[in-house]
Amino acid sequence: MNHSKKQISDSEFHSIVALLHGSDQPGLVAKVSNWIWKRQGNILHADQHRDSEHEIFFQRVEWVPQETSTREIKAFEDFAEGLGMNCQISVSSHRPKVALFVSRYDHCYHDIILRWKAGEFNGELAVVISNHEDLRDSTLNYGLPFEHVPVAKENKKAAESRQIEILKAHQVELVILARYMQVLSRELLLEMRGQVINVHHSFLPAFAGAKPYHQAHQRGVKLIGATAHYATEDLDEGPIISQEVAPVNHRHSVADLVRNGRDLEKRVLAQAVRFHLEHRILCYQNKTVVFS
Amino acid sequence: MNHSKKQISDSEFHSIVALLHGSDQPGLVAKVSNWIWKRQGNILHADQHRDSEHEIFFQRVEWVPQETSTREIKAFEDFAEGLGMNCQISVSSHRPKVALFVSRYDHCYHDIILRWKAGEFNGELAVVISNHEDLRDSTLNYGLPFEHVPVAKENKKAAESRQIEILKAHQVELVILARYMQVLSRELLLEMRGQVINVHHSFLPAFAGAKPYHQAHQRGVKLIGATAHYATEDLDEGPIISQEVAPVNHRHSVADLVRNGRDLEKRVLAQAVRFHLEHRILCYQNKTVVFS
Amino acid sequence: MNHSKKQISDSEFHSIVALLHGSDQPGLVAKVSNWIWKRQGNILHADQHRDSEHEIFFQRVEWVPQETSTREIKAFEDFAEGLGMNCQISVSSHRPKVALFVSRYDHCYHDIILRWKAGEFNGELAVVISNHEDLRDSTLNYGLPFEHVPVAKENKKAAESRQIEILKAHQVELVILARYMQVLSRELLLEMRGQVINVHHSFLPAFAGAKPYHQAHQRGVKLIGATAHYATEDLDEGPIISQEVAPVNHRHSVADLVRNGRDLEKRVLAQAVRFHLEHRILCYQNKTVVFS
Amino acid sequence: MNHSKKQISDSEFHSIVALLHGSDQPGLVAKVSNWIWKRQGNILHADQHRDSEHEIFFQRVEWVPQETSTREIKAFEDFAEGLGMNCQISVSSHRPKVALFVSRYDHCYHDIILRWKAGEFNGELAVVISNHEDLRDSTLNYGLPFEHVPVAKENKKAAESRQIEILKAHQVELVILARYMQVLSRELLLEMRGQVINVHHSFLPAFAGAKPYHQAHQRGVKLIGATAHYATEDLDEGPIISQEVAPVNHRHSVADLVRNGRDLEKRVLAQAVRFHLEHRILCYQNKTVVFS
Repeated sequence: MNHSKKQISDSEFHSIVALLHGSDQPGLVAKVSNWIWKRQGNILHADQHRDSEHEIFFQRVEWVPQETSTREIKAFEDFAEGLGMNCQISVSSHRPKVALFVSRYDHCYHDIILRWKAGEFNGELAVVISNHEDLRDSTLNYGLPFEHVPVAKENKKAAESRQIEILKAHQVELVILARYMQVLSRELLLEMRGQVINVHHSFLPAFAGAKPYHQAHQRGVKLIGATAHYATEDLDEGPIISQEVAPVNHRHSVADLVRNGRDLEKRVLAQAVRFHLEHRILCYQNKTVVFS
Repeated sequence: MNHSKKQISDSEFHSIVALLHGSDQPGLVAKVSNWIWKRQGNILHADQHRDSEHEIFFQRVEWVPQETSTREIKAFEDFAEGLGMNCQISVSSHRPKVALFVSRYDHCYHDIILRWKAGEFNGELAVVISNHEDLRDSTLNYGLPFEHVPVAKENKKAAESRQIEILKAHQVELVILARYMQVLSRELLLEMRGQVINVHHSFLPAFAGAKPYHQAHQRGVKLIGATAHYATEDLDEGPIISQEVAPVNHRHSVADLVRNGRDLEKRVLAQAVRFHLEHRILCYQNKTVVFS
Repeated sequence: MNHSKKQISDSEFHSIVALLHGSDQPGLVAKVSNWIWKRQGNILHADQHRDSEHEIFFQRVEWVPQETSTREIKAFEDFAEGLGMNCQISVSSHRPKVALFVSRYDHCYHDIILRWKAGEFNGELAVVISNHEDLRDSTLNYGLPFEHVPVAKENKKAAESRQIEILKAHQVELVILARYMQVLSRELLLEMRGQVINVHHSFLPAFAGAKPYHQAHQRGVKLIGATAHYATEDLDEGPIISQEVAPVNHRHSVADLVRNGRDLEKRVLAQAVRFHLEHRILCYQNKTVVFS
Repeated sequence: MNHSKKQISDSEFHSIVALLHGSDQPGLVAKVSNWIWKRQGNILHADQHRDSEHEIFFQRVEWVPQETSTREIKAFEDFAEGLGMNCQISVSSHRPKVALFVSRYDHCYHDIILRWKAGEFNGELAVVISNHEDLRDSTLNYGLPFEHVPVAKENKKAAESRQIEILKAHQVELVILARYMQVLSRELLLEMRGQVINVHHSFLPAFAGAKPYHQAHQRGVKLIGATAHYATEDLDEGPIISQEVAPVNHRHSVADLVRNGRDLEKRVLAQAVRFHLEHRILCYQNKTVVFS
């Protein structure tokens, strides 16, 4: 998403993914597949969804074009515009740069980096940004740059400017908040055009806010959960991408919930990041369509 | 629970279950197991839990006594009193009478009755009470009495009196609200001493109140849930016994959530009823200890 | 599937579902969607899959045609034939007749009938066939015909002929084996052209054959499972449609596994039947593609 | 388990865990809890199980003794012997040394080390042993010794001797096979007295042997699994400790199963190791009792 055209060279990419959405109209599936076929493209995957309540059409289509050039992409964008559809388009050779924000809890941090090294993500970790120094050595061992940006009440503005500077310097297209314990500013969110994924350690909307495992323990629930979602200005209110739960019982202390929850947090965050980087997610009405 | 001593004959029961709880103190496990052993009882199961936060001790112990008599039960009750422990005691031959409240949604109703017929519950369905006539024939086919108690704003008091009358007439010890769409009065809850199990069609505390599947659809969650809990005056706020979830996605309409949710509702309600009738549940601090 | 053309009247159906599969070739998605669009049909759902290993293309497409007539269906069939694709086509107004085979275990039997009555299935239960008399009254109470066909070593051939006779008389298009404890003959399977769904009470291929819960208990597994699959002559070897598992531990006796397993069996069988009747399943290479 | 008495100092430990099993006899719970109480110990947890089929009694009991000394342990061992019970006894201050065997797949390797660093295990990683050099740098970065022991047909005996030497040098009490691709010899298993945990990438007993994800893909199952078990000479046949599954469908290639399976493997292996190191597991009849 948000692909910056200059980064695409005229060669070397294999497939194109387009995410379309807009008002439903007759023949959309036919028109899109026709367009691709007429230009001798070969559709690898096509998935669509009609929201019958709001009469919106969603499509994810991935194809191998005959001619792998930026001209092809431009042509499709014009075609989609002609249909009155919003279009996000990406090519398989483009691996977006990703920034990982972390504080002191390091389970999601290690998990994301190791999965990236294992080839699970269609993107490149570019930089780790933290408000603490704790993970500097570990990050350097992983071969990644580490940026320490302390955040305090007094320096909030300056810290955010510094973060935005780093994101720009690394041409970051996705921010992952891996249990980052600071709220992001409106500006940073705008700068990232919503491409910020957060993990909350509860089954939202239950136990939003602080100390969700304490809240869960207090209420005596029999399942705990974790939620990955796009970050918005309203904390814990953004579009949900992925959720998982695990059983708990009266024997579990808060510390047990925290430990069990770590596994959930890792899984939902990794899954959300993977879906995002494979261009499988469309947002609307504060919800997500995930073509999984 | 709430067993009424006169119902126990001096013969024919095989095991005794005691649920104990009270302030923790040294030697409780030893004292209880000793008492049983000295009287030549044979412990089948013993499970205990210490809430280290509140320093409360919980125990469920089931044993085959040497002498199967009410005297043995009385003796244990005196012994537990001497320890300063609360004690609920029950015998395997006693099968509590159960009332099933239902309105029009019949999936939990059929499920509970069929499981009861399959021998899954350690109790006896005694009567079906409904504010609608719809399930009369079905109930009679199952060989159960059906009581129609219409509930309207004007007759609420009278309806409740009638319900209590029926519960008393059938010596009911447990009420199951199988998607019963009316709020029970404080009096009925007091009359039943809290032995009322409800099913709510969401993963509480998320989506309490009306139309939880609509709320879930609106929020765009990726899991729906169901919760069985003891009914209290605060709707959807009672101690949680059992919870389950199922995955959903953008393709699911509210109607799909309703259909998938029915399966969850059946399972959590049946599980809660089974645990209750096997004397596996202790309540405290608006939570449950479930010795499963 | 196996729809018999004469049963479709020229009016009253709303949508058409086509299941296509065949050798992959360029432009298939475009050709199919084009065909529908050109005839002013409106695609409701379209889902496709390419098996890249075997180069097979699969598609399920559902649309509202401009003209709801058998001519439209014939036209599409001719079109698909022209593409060299296998085609199963069905209309929404056609609700296939279903036969339920049962022996003595009645949990799947009740579950299927109650779900059918709740409107979960896109078909009509036409008859219950059993090798025992036990469920006659219950079946009649449900308002369904009951056919007792005893099966013994000596009368196997005759029993099967009788079964086939009943299936023909009721124009049955799908047979559900709801824990039916007899092996079906090759003839009956041929007669039903593979439209027979069985439930096996294990996570196949583990514990095929007799007494799977005993086998599971013996091996000490930590999960039990159930599998719904199309019945083939090789017992428990047919294409798998649906599988579920539940956790077990050392405390569970074989009887506990049986009880817990019942819930799994009900769910996988109901899910498989629902998918089948919504024309979501394609078989190939002894596997299933389930467009869920 | 297998605790070596000389390692326990007379001070500093807080609790004792005993795992008992033997022929069932009246009064066992009472006798054990009495013994502890009489010596002014304070029971933290007590869990027992009777296998009614084989009339075996199992108990895990954890208590804070009045006197934290080796004398207390010796006294309990004598007491258990007097009861005719097998007894494994351990103290909370003793953290067993653990060796991690790994080949090239590194997901379980990283996962185990990171969980250990996060404090999830009641033991100490002492050494990493591999038949490849690949993970040397990573291991040293983690601050752990790395031992390269190449294994080839010609040097099998020598390699095993070397492995045993290393295990002895590090006083290893538990071996974790984190996707180690070589079969261990009888001698090493004997040397470790069965304290070897393996992870197999299928839901055993389904798909034992080589390439389970390929087998699963071939069979068309709808769930894949992973199993952690004690290693025995019969490959994939040892007592099962932990199993998990995840849903798959026709869209998943073998590579997808491999990726999804990694998460399952990590979870079941970590869980098994945690239970083992908390002395929660007893083996009998090639099964496990896991007091979780």
